[in-house]
Amino acid sequence: MGFVPNIKVAFQYVGTEYSGYELQPGNRTVRGEVEKALQKIYKKKVGVISSSRTDAGVHALQNVINFQVDPSIPTAKLPLALNACLPEDIRVLKAVTVAKSFNARFNAKSKEYEYLICNGEVMPPFLKDLAWQVKPKLDLSAMRKAARLLEGKHDFSSFCAAGGDDRDYIRTIHSFGIRHSAFGIWDSQKIKVIRIKVKGNGFLYKMVRNIVGTLVAVGLGKLKAEDVRRILEAKDRRLAGRTAPPQGLCLIKVNFK
Amino acid sequence: MGFVPNIKVAFQYVGTEYSGYELQPGNRTVRGEVEKALQKIYKKKVGVISSSRTDAGVHALQNVINFQVDPSIPTAKLPLALNACLPEDIRVLKAVTVAKSFNARFNAKSKEYEYLICNGEVMPPFLKDLAWQVKPKLDLSAMRKAARLLEGKHDFSSFCAAGGDDRDYIRTIHSFGIRHSAFGIWDSQKIKVIRIKVKGNGFLYKMVRNIVGTLVAVGLGKLKAEDVRRILEAKDRRLAGRTAPPQGLCLIKVNFK
Repeated sequence: MGFVPNIKVAFQYVGTEYSGYELQPGNRTVRGEVEKALQKIYKKKVGVISSSRTDAGVHALQNVINFQVDPSIPTAKLPLALNACLPEDIRVLKAVTVAKSFNARFNAKSKEYEYLICNGEVMPPFLKDLAWQVKPKLDLSAMRKAARLLEGKHDFSSFCAAGGDDRDYIRTIHSFGIRHSAFGIWDSQKIKVIRIKVKGNGFLYKMVRNIVGTLVAVGLGKLKAEDVRRILEAKDRRLAGRTAPPQGLCLIKVNFK
Repeated sequence: MGFVPNIKVAFQYVGTEYSGYELQPGNRTVRGEVEKALQKIYKKKVGVISSSRTDAGVHALQNVINFQVDPSIPTAKLPLALNACLPEDIRVLKAVTVAKSFNARFNAKSKEYEYLICNGEVMPPFLKDLAWQVKPKLDLSAMRKAARLLEGKHDFSSFCAAGGDDRDYIRTIHSFGIRHSAFGIWDSQKIKVIRIKVKGNGFLYKMVRNIVGTLVAVGLGKLKAEDVRRILEAKDRRLAGRTAPPQGLCLIKVNFK
């Protein structure tokens, strides 16, 4: 048997039309589409190792997979070949050959997420699949105060949804960033959003959305910033705020060891 | 009969899911959804007069209608009431009571459009319904030169598609703006686009898309900037470039007398 390269591929997707990243029998998934495209190119089933399994409706600016396969096509040509086979809401950005030891799941050192909120009476229609509308005005300084209590190494059981396969609940959140921002898809109109950015060494099942839901409860005055410490210490999912809806969430980046 | 106010309503929409603005039997249209919402609120059919009938897949930041109806609901409360009945890709921004003489169609003095092009090998998936991907590099200075030849008062027959109900083909284009731009839906990634902005006293059927298609042909070197003068003078649709696809186009604003 000849040399079998280990290929690392970064790709971007709009999660709206998918039942999530991970394979699900009978449902259209991001991984399912990616493996279908690989099968077309390599004429055989190629199993992939994935950095992140985003939920249904969640987006990614950069998710990463790796796989080992015969070098029947130059790695540099893989993005073009894959994009020709993939639906247009999934785009491969880059493919590189990496060391045999690289594993997209186990070598992930940290992940960055961003969550978009439209805070106002009228939801901009261009963001309907990309943001969460929260109508009453949010108190960002209270939300920042609450977020600071979650930074660092903690047992995040209170923010973990049932149904995941997490074995331990200790994670480290390196930083939060919460701020107002505006951008114009069309030049003539700036769309105002609140951006919640979070970086950590890993996240439990639905942890980011549960944290965002809790921070929004703080921003609405339904919880006090200090309550977050109590919720964290209780290790009880029932105490945290509601799970924020998926469409506002985007996996921004996976950093590797 | 009492006082029947004339109500002017500005609204925004994503055109992706609609067979265009104008009513069409058996098809889902923007006007159809707006009239359905008005019927729910006023408990009777309300016919509207519209500023602009955008094509299937074309968007609007601000389209305008007016209608005369019994004042059974305060005009200021109309946006909230309509938005509660409308699908989330159509949003009413504002409603005001105006003079009886106001007519959204005939009082329109000028219209502004913007067209988005993604000029590169990989189409950002978040813009798949909002921009046209043109892969080879476009020469913007040639496109600007061509656009200048279209400014002013001309017979635009060469840029008018068959199937419209335009009676004369003389229109005035006040200005073009063509430039590179970038914006970030997610903070961590700026999406690069080319914006083509055009303002005129009115536009023939598919005129903006036919002009954009012709400017892109110039930008690709398939036509020379000077060819645009010849095309304009020939008054023959077969000479202009292809019709640019609808999803890149947005009606930005209607200005009134």
